[in-house]
Amino acid sequence: MHPETSLPKVFKEFLPIIENALQKIFSEKNKNILEKSMAYSALAKGKRIRPVLALCAYKLFGKEDYETIATSSCALELIHAYSLVHDDLPAMDNDDLRRGVPTNHKVFGDAIAILAGDALQTLGIEMLALYPEGSAFRSRRLKALKVVLSAIGREGMALGQAMDIEEKEEDFDEESLLRMHFLKTGRLIEASLLCGGIWAGAKRREIKLLSDFGKSLGILFQLSDDILDEVSTAEKLGKTPGKDKRDKKTTLVSLWGMEKSIQMVEHYLSECLIALSPFGDKAQDLREIARFVAKRDF
Amino acid sequence: MHPETSLPKVFKEFLPIIENALQKIFSEKNKNILEKSMAYSALAKGKRIRPVLALCAYKLFGKEDYETIATSSCALELIHAYSLVHDDLPAMDNDDLRRGVPTNHKVFGDAIAILAGDALQTLGIEMLALYPEGSAFRSRRLKALKVVLSAIGREGMALGQAMDIEEKEEDFDEESLLRMHFLKTGRLIEASLLCGGIWAGAKRREIKLLSDFGKSLGILFQLSDDILDEVSTAEKLGKTPGKDKRDKKTTLVSLWGMEKSIQMVEHYLSECLIALSPFGDKAQDLREIARFVAKRDF
Repeated sequence: MHPETSLPKVFKEFLPIIENALQKIFSEKNKNILEKSMAYSALAKGKRIRPVLALCAYKLFGKEDYETIATSSCALELIHAYSLVHDDLPAMDNDDLRRGVPTNHKVFGDAIAILAGDALQTLGIEMLALYPEGSAFRSRRLKALKVVLSAIGREGMALGQAMDIEEKEEDFDEESLLRMHFLKTGRLIEASLLCGGIWAGAKRREIKLLSDFGKSLGILFQLSDDILDEVSTAEKLGKTPGKDKRDKKTTLVSLWGMEKSIQMVEHYLSECLIALSPFGDKAQDLREIARFVAKRDF
Repeated sequence: MHPETSLPKVFKEFLPIIENALQKIFSEKNKNILEKSMAYSALAKGKRIRPVLALCAYKLFGKEDYETIATSSCALELIHAYSLVHDDLPAMDNDDLRRGVPTNHKVFGDAIAILAGDALQTLGIEMLALYPEGSAFRSRRLKALKVVLSAIGREGMALGQAMDIEEKEEDFDEESLLRMHFLKTGRLIEASLLCGGIWAGAKRREIKLLSDFGKSLGILFQLSDDILDEVSTAEKLGKTPGKDKRDKKTTLVSLWGMEKSIQMVEHYLSECLIALSPFGDKAQDLREIARFVAKRDF
């Protein structure tokens, strides 16, 4: 995990808003075991990149009332947390460490971890159905909700994870590996940007640019992750490194080799910047995030 | 499972509509492994009681365009199927048999079963966000969606299942056992009825009656299940019988004994009928369902 200083400065602006909204979602004092398990994973220290992207996309259209979309932006983090809790299960990737702490099932057991993931999904979707509040947001709220539902289900994140679990090493060529990563990681990243744009009332062609940016950023994100997994330590990473290699998983790095992988980082970064160029100076935050993702200290 | 002849006649009217809508939801020809696993559990033969309840509640208010709410009613079955797939997992109730066929994880493995459950939840919610179609249904659609989200998450079905998993035998007194069953089973039963009423434009006091009926029906349902589990065979039941006793679970039957349990069936049936009485003859279908649930052949 990065030292906080290296995060783009927009994180400093948005993280307190996000953490505050997340705390409110889990403010119940006498938490039952399910709530404890949900809060454990949702509140675990993370970069909150998905809510930050939603807030940046909102800001991109001149909006400054960030509190208005704080809770609905956190919905994206809840959905991400659900996917992590389930992905880490022994039946799936069998990870012991996540965000620098033991994984949910290591603390609460497999059964409660499954239910906590289930309920985090429900809660994330519920926050999207209820927020941003007010009748003025009614149609935008529904539009964003539909975008996220389509991004995470049988044609999105869940399918990507199923492909990752199911496919044999030899099944993955470049195209299918990129598709798997787009589904598993990219679609929720893209959806987060679209939500911010939709809540801000962005026009169709602006939404298209956000979508292009999100697609490239998603791959960039995964590519950096694969490179990090190859070269980092558990302490820096906050999860077990070198795991993909041990599990004999095809990664973008194992497919392309390290040299081409680093070139491809530049390629996808440039795709990100091209998508943002019509926005001019207003897209500076998103540009910094793309550069940050590309440079995760390797 | 009952021979079809013993089902209330309203099932004969509604089941073809429901099965047709379910088939359409899984009509993709070249199904990937995730879709196959989802379809396996969603299409497995079942009584479809939740969609039937939604359709009956809709009919109760003089509606006859059942196709209008066919897909959204099936959403309730998808959500129920998600809960069954996860409940059956080795980490949870560890069941091998469900609806007369091997459980999802026995066929597809634990990882795909977890993901299929996840994606069935998303899909069910998506169907509620998209259907019934048309702008005339916009506000009713959102209202029904919120009712279901609240019924299945951290204050509903998922919490009920967590309580069931977590509590020790000695923790359950009558009150907490009834609360657990209400959360785990009752809330989705109740929500199914409310959905039908909401889609039909029922008034607040009518919704309240449906809610009262649903709460009693939910307990009746669980009580019958517990009695059946005690006395039935795998063939009749479609799942492993006597399991609760072997797992040393507190059930309503173990708490009350068989004699009082059968008396309590009469009590909750009468509560059901009281809630329906203001509807007069129009509630005949729901009355028959309550009697059917109460009499499941023991």
